[in-house]
Amino acid sequence: MKNEYQKVTSYEAKNGEFKKCLLLYSGGLDTSVMLKWIQDNYHCEVVTLTINIGQTADDLEMIKNKALKLGAKEAIVYDAKKDFADQILSLAIKANADYQGGYALSTPLGRVIISQIAVQMAKQYDCQVIAHGCTGKGNDQVRFESYILTLDPTIKIIAPVREWSMGRDEEIQYAKENNISVKQKVDSPYSYDENMWGNTGEGGEIEDPKLIPPLENILQWCTLPENTPNESEIVEIEFNAGVPTAINGIKIDLASIIEYVNKIGSKHGVGIVPLIEDRIVGLKVRGIYENPGATILISAHKKLEQLVSTRDENEFKEIVDHKWAYLTYGAKWFEPVMSHLHAFINDHNKKVTGKVQVHLFKGMATVVALSSPYSLFNKDMATFDKNAAFNQNASAGFIEIYSLAQKTANQVFKY
Amino acid sequence: MKNEYQKVTSYEAKNGEFKKCLLLYSGGLDTSVMLKWIQDNYHCEVVTLTINIGQTADDLEMIKNKALKLGAKEAIVYDAKKDFADQILSLAIKANADYQGGYALSTPLGRVIISQIAVQMAKQYDCQVIAHGCTGKGNDQVRFESYILTLDPTIKIIAPVREWSMGRDEEIQYAKENNISVKQKVDSPYSYDENMWGNTGEGGEIEDPKLIPPLENILQWCTLPENTPNESEIVEIEFNAGVPTAINGIKIDLASIIEYVNKIGSKHGVGIVPLIEDRIVGLKVRGIYENPGATILISAHKKLEQLVSTRDENEFKEIVDHKWAYLTYGAKWFEPVMSHLHAFINDHNKKVTGKVQVHLFKGMATVVALSSPYSLFNKDMATFDKNAAFNQNASAGFIEIYSLAQKTANQVFKY
Amino acid sequence: MKNEYQKVTSYEAKNGEFKKCLLLYSGGLDTSVMLKWIQDNYHCEVVTLTINIGQTADDLEMIKNKALKLGAKEAIVYDAKKDFADQILSLAIKANADYQGGYALSTPLGRVIISQIAVQMAKQYDCQVIAHGCTGKGNDQVRFESYILTLDPTIKIIAPVREWSMGRDEEIQYAKENNISVKQKVDSPYSYDENMWGNTGEGGEIEDPKLIPPLENILQWCTLPENTPNESEIVEIEFNAGVPTAINGIKIDLASIIEYVNKIGSKHGVGIVPLIEDRIVGLKVRGIYENPGATILISAHKKLEQLVSTRDENEFKEIVDHKWAYLTYGAKWFEPVMSHLHAFINDHNKKVTGKVQVHLFKGMATVVALSSPYSLFNKDMATFDKNAAFNQNASAGFIEIYSLAQKTANQVFKY
Amino acid sequence: MKNEYQKVTSYEAKNGEFKKCLLLYSGGLDTSVMLKWIQDNYHCEVVTLTINIGQTADDLEMIKNKALKLGAKEAIVYDAKKDFADQILSLAIKANADYQGGYALSTPLGRVIISQIAVQMAKQYDCQVIAHGCTGKGNDQVRFESYILTLDPTIKIIAPVREWSMGRDEEIQYAKENNISVKQKVDSPYSYDENMWGNTGEGGEIEDPKLIPPLENILQWCTLPENTPNESEIVEIEFNAGVPTAINGIKIDLASIIEYVNKIGSKHGVGIVPLIEDRIVGLKVRGIYENPGATILISAHKKLEQLVSTRDENEFKEIVDHKWAYLTYGAKWFEPVMSHLHAFINDHNKKVTGKVQVHLFKGMATVVALSSPYSLFNKDMATFDKNAAFNQNASAGFIEIYSLAQKTANQVFKY
Repeated sequence: MKNEYQKVTSYEAKNGEFKKCLLLYSGGLDTSVMLKWIQDNYHCEVVTLTINIGQTADDLEMIKNKALKLGAKEAIVYDAKKDFADQILSLAIKANADYQGGYALSTPLGRVIISQIAVQMAKQYDCQVIAHGCTGKGNDQVRFESYILTLDPTIKIIAPVREWSMGRDEEIQYAKENNISVKQKVDSPYSYDENMWGNTGEGGEIEDPKLIPPLENILQWCTLPENTPNESEIVEIEFNAGVPTAINGIKIDLASIIEYVNKIGSKHGVGIVPLIEDRIVGLKVRGIYENPGATILISAHKKLEQLVSTRDENEFKEIVDHKWAYLTYGAKWFEPVMSHLHAFINDHNKKVTGKVQVHLFKGMATVVALSSPYSLFNKDMATFDKNAAFNQNASAGFIEIYSLAQKTANQVFKY
Repeated sequence: MKNEYQKVTSYEAKNGEFKKCLLLYSGGLDTSVMLKWIQDNYHCEVVTLTINIGQTADDLEMIKNKALKLGAKEAIVYDAKKDFADQILSLAIKANADYQGGYALSTPLGRVIISQIAVQMAKQYDCQVIAHGCTGKGNDQVRFESYILTLDPTIKIIAPVREWSMGRDEEIQYAKENNISVKQKVDSPYSYDENMWGNTGEGGEIEDPKLIPPLENILQWCTLPENTPNESEIVEIEFNAGVPTAINGIKIDLASIIEYVNKIGSKHGVGIVPLIEDRIVGLKVRGIYENPGATILISAHKKLEQLVSTRDENEFKEIVDHKWAYLTYGAKWFEPVMSHLHAFINDHNKKVTGKVQVHLFKGMATVVALSSPYSLFNKDMATFDKNAAFNQNASAGFIEIYSLAQKTANQVFKY
Repeated sequence: MKNEYQKVTSYEAKNGEFKKCLLLYSGGLDTSVMLKWIQDNYHCEVVTLTINIGQTADDLEMIKNKALKLGAKEAIVYDAKKDFADQILSLAIKANADYQGGYALSTPLGRVIISQIAVQMAKQYDCQVIAHGCTGKGNDQVRFESYILTLDPTIKIIAPVREWSMGRDEEIQYAKENNISVKQKVDSPYSYDENMWGNTGEGGEIEDPKLIPPLENILQWCTLPENTPNESEIVEIEFNAGVPTAINGIKIDLASIIEYVNKIGSKHGVGIVPLIEDRIVGLKVRGIYENPGATILISAHKKLEQLVSTRDENEFKEIVDHKWAYLTYGAKWFEPVMSHLHAFINDHNKKVTGKVQVHLFKGMATVVALSSPYSLFNKDMATFDKNAAFNQNASAGFIEIYSLAQKTANQVFKY
Repeated sequence: MKNEYQKVTSYEAKNGEFKKCLLLYSGGLDTSVMLKWIQDNYHCEVVTLTINIGQTADDLEMIKNKALKLGAKEAIVYDAKKDFADQILSLAIKANADYQGGYALSTPLGRVIISQIAVQMAKQYDCQVIAHGCTGKGNDQVRFESYILTLDPTIKIIAPVREWSMGRDEEIQYAKENNISVKQKVDSPYSYDENMWGNTGEGGEIEDPKLIPPLENILQWCTLPENTPNESEIVEIEFNAGVPTAINGIKIDLASIIEYVNKIGSKHGVGIVPLIEDRIVGLKVRGIYENPGATILISAHKKLEQLVSTRDENEFKEIVDHKWAYLTYGAKWFEPVMSHLHAFINDHNKKVTGKVQVHLFKGMATVVALSSPYSLFNKDMATFDKNAAFNQNASAGFIEIYSLAQKTANQVFKY
């Protein structure tokens, strides 16, 4: 069975050809079963890698011990919160990350840094193979495999869920036989993926667009707007060259800013987005996104960027951001065109500096005031003051020429 | 003074060269002063035209009488609500009208139908000239003059505010001398433009982005979210080929649907948008938009459209809608390229049919459930059922080829 | 071996599950071997389908007889020249078909109509399976399989070249054993694909961009510019709504026009394009395209379209055409977004009516004169005459406002 | 008369408010008359500025003497050839400069550097005013006034041709009265603008698209293809990071490379383009462009760029280049969005390194061979060798998923 499969994917690992495997390990049922299964089926050593990019639910020390108990040769725990914020999320903010209406791309962005660290750790721990826990229907297999092999084409991949023939019951049976704890939140039909940039809920009634999702059961981060404080709150974010540098006047690092706005945003129920999204593999599925902090920071950034940019800049930036979002979602972070988009985006953001006040209330984050040394509003008014006024006499001439082609075309052909 | 001006704008009316002028008349101070001023300065007859496109504040009978009292030869009142909805706003819904983040383009869309009717009435009442009340700093002069002269290049234009040398005080003096009522809402520093698609507030503290706008003083349509009902409400909108056809199961015409969602949306504080927008003439200014109904309908439409469209469709539609919004804002409704965009948009919308439930609460309009005979979600699932599953075995091959160029490029050059 | 493979592609035909197979049959070595091989390996009846879309090299009667001799149950020969021109190529002309610089997309467009007819014939001849002769490295497998299964998802596919384990020598051995004529042009390392829209040469030295391709050995349609007539020639093409309707004043159908411009274009060496193109599957390869007729018609169409279109139209049309070309090349002819692009393109082309003179000489096709009832040039001049002149006095005002944002931005931030 | 005009353009110079004017001086009739006219009408000193950006026809020493003879206070001659090539044309090459089909943007690019130097010289020579010789119907007034006032908003502009009331005859009369030589090429109805990037012919029969332009009378640089050598020639251009660095193996500076390819391109009649172009001011007009060198360099660059770029890069680069061309033509070189586009373009071009062979014959410049250390073709083949082959087994899985949405959509809705 396995052999057949390998025919198709020349880069997947073959039984016997490697000694050590790095497993992307979350501590949950699936990857715990995998940890055993790989040892059993590939007769190799397994090193587990658990990366902290701000998922709130995990107890990393416990995960490490669980891995070692299940036979891991080594159990690496890696804190990548700061790198994730500084290297990846700063770009997401500058690009006003938004896929198909309100999704700040938490999972696709997380997959980038996980892949980078996985490749680095595989080298360091002399693993020839990396194993991930994704199924064959989703986006994440595409991201992990594309990124890992882009960063190091000599690595082989194992995707046990695509490989093994176990159904849910067999998997639980296998877990019990191997003393793997099966205590799932029994009632929850939902599965989640979280990191500091957002939390994604999928499965169960969430998936079918026809059903109203029972948010009260689904949400893990955000308070339902119905239950949030009746008093609004204003948060002030300071940006320097497109990157948040201070919150309410206090300069802290980006990871801490994100942590803070997640907390305050969750409290006010900000950034809850039910989204029917187009997966890379051509399927459509609904998820419930909770992006409280991302929503606050991106709203603030986008309005500040608009304030310091011309109409021509604002028009084209949307094209660039739109392309960026589709590529980031689409497992193309290392596509060379992304490097060029980042050059564009970074150049544009050089002047996105200033302060933004965001009003939080019952699920909404509204930008209510902005200031910037590079504000084009300020400058316009300054010009007005000096020259007494915008030169209204120029308008008639402007309009005559601005509309010339439109007028001419309509005389020639009727639309 | 006037003569100088005419040098620049060959199409502006010259004193003495015409007998009858059609004045776009709102009944307010400015256009009432104009009604007198044109008679005085151009020694011509004036016909006033007041078009009802759903502005709520106006008493049309009173406006008519005021015009006649001030010397208008005729005072036309024209009800264009149904045409505005069916001919213009239906397209705005299909194009998910959004300029620079949350502005549904109420004023630019209103200018289209006003110009069309003005040209038609000018012909009917034998007016050689059309006068509008816009200043030389804004967008609306560009729209009126572009559209009117596109629709009929033989018409001449008068823009008294650009022409006369009166300041505010002189204007009020002139009004008093001519028995024109000057009772303005004295305390309000704001000016408004409204039609059934939205209400725009400008002026005073609204304009400066640095200041938090005092919404409690500014809003005319919407209840502040702080004061809206504590109970949420769900409204169901039915679409046929992209156009709303029923609300909560009741089939009514589009104008009535818009009226209804404006009412319910205002009640829940939906669609309040402070926006720093780029004017056509190169200025940046902040306005406060109230688009309760538009926000509800467009949110619903956009999600339904996404549900029935592929990833390729969804990606390109955003480019088309984006272009559409910039052109519509930019006084280019009759640009031939708009005709082609509309052909695209109408073809795309043939299948945007189904029902959408929108949850309204404290300023937010969230689409929570959708169904459509053309849903790509439904179909996907059906396919799953029949063939037992999405063919997960295809994934490895897909990923290998999908990521081939990315992988190759990174081996050749380091980014 | 075959069984393994079927695991991956659920829609490929399995041995024994069908009775009759439709083979896309060219009469060449590969598909002749297939004709035998399918009978041997799938124990089914084979119907061959040979479609004439203007390939010049084929003797269709001979191909039919060869098929029958090799055991085909039926040998269909289908003349699709007129349909190909009217239904597919007319759209290609309106879209100014050009992929990556000079390739008019002959093969991708041909695959569309072949797939349509194949599905229709499969139904008519009660075949449950369609077999094609493409390898696993190219674009055409992607096109055939995408299109056939889009048009009829119940059909199964066989791709013998991807399936069988024969190398070149074994294939020739197999051919000899089965009395299949092996008379190849022994010296030619090149393979060709041709239809009325162009001829593509691939293989051998053509593939490697570092080598200068020996055109004198490669070209099949076009005379080398070095050997073309020393006298230039002008051809006049008349368009109606974007479609060529007459040549040198003689009204004939589109297929005949294409035949004519291919002949005259080949004579003058027009449309020889060496192109390093990006395949769908992520590979880059060079081909030599001969598109004499396509080059003439598209050059003429594009210039005429520009003449009757505004700057805004011309700017956006390039975006639309560019997208169209990538989708057409990329096996996405039946992507719904193509339907919308066609709606745009057809609406735009309503006015692309007029006459174009194209000068042919030594490989070049240069548009030297154009006229149209909808020419925006003519109209502009007419306007000048009437109003004495373009209003130069409007220019200063235009420039002041047109450049306002650019000037303001540069005062605020230094680039 | 002048006073009226000043009302409209607040930034135009007013009589008496300045002492010294910098005149952009070509030495021709128009600017010579201006040199006198400004002295007469504004009673100020005039400094002439003649910039050499590679126009071949001018004798700069003679122009200088003529200026001094006509009363110029100073006559500056400035050699900007090297700066033009290195600072501006290098970017044009990287952006594959092409406006509306074959125009390499020589004039718009020249206007950038002329404006930059004019502003610098105005400061150095203490001129408060800059005068240019453009009419009110063209693009160049828009470019000069936008750029000069962007670079220094304190400068005033004079545009005598828009101001004075002289017709052609009066101008010649005025010239004679002031001892200004009137020896025009009497028979030529054409006017030209040239610099090292190309030569533009306008006027006379050129303008009307209906007429075949008599190239034999119009061309100034290029030999008619009918009269070029019967032997073809191959030129090899070497690029480093997108910029030409050597020609036929000899490393020289960019200005010299351009000079060389202009010479060899002209000899072979390359880059002659009749183009009906859309002017900024909404008019359409035909010009005859001669861009021999630009055509050779851009063809070579574009193919090399494609060779080292992925399909995703090549697809988006065309969007970027397209935007770049419209902005450059449209007097928006200093629009901030151009800075961001240049960041994109420069990042993309980091790897555009290699050698390109271009075949020149009878008007055509055809890229026939390319090599690059970053070639994606080379690498692909290398990969093939190592792994025995592209993994054809992956194709079926790829196609299944790649076409999934297309197939699904067509089952749900008929297009």
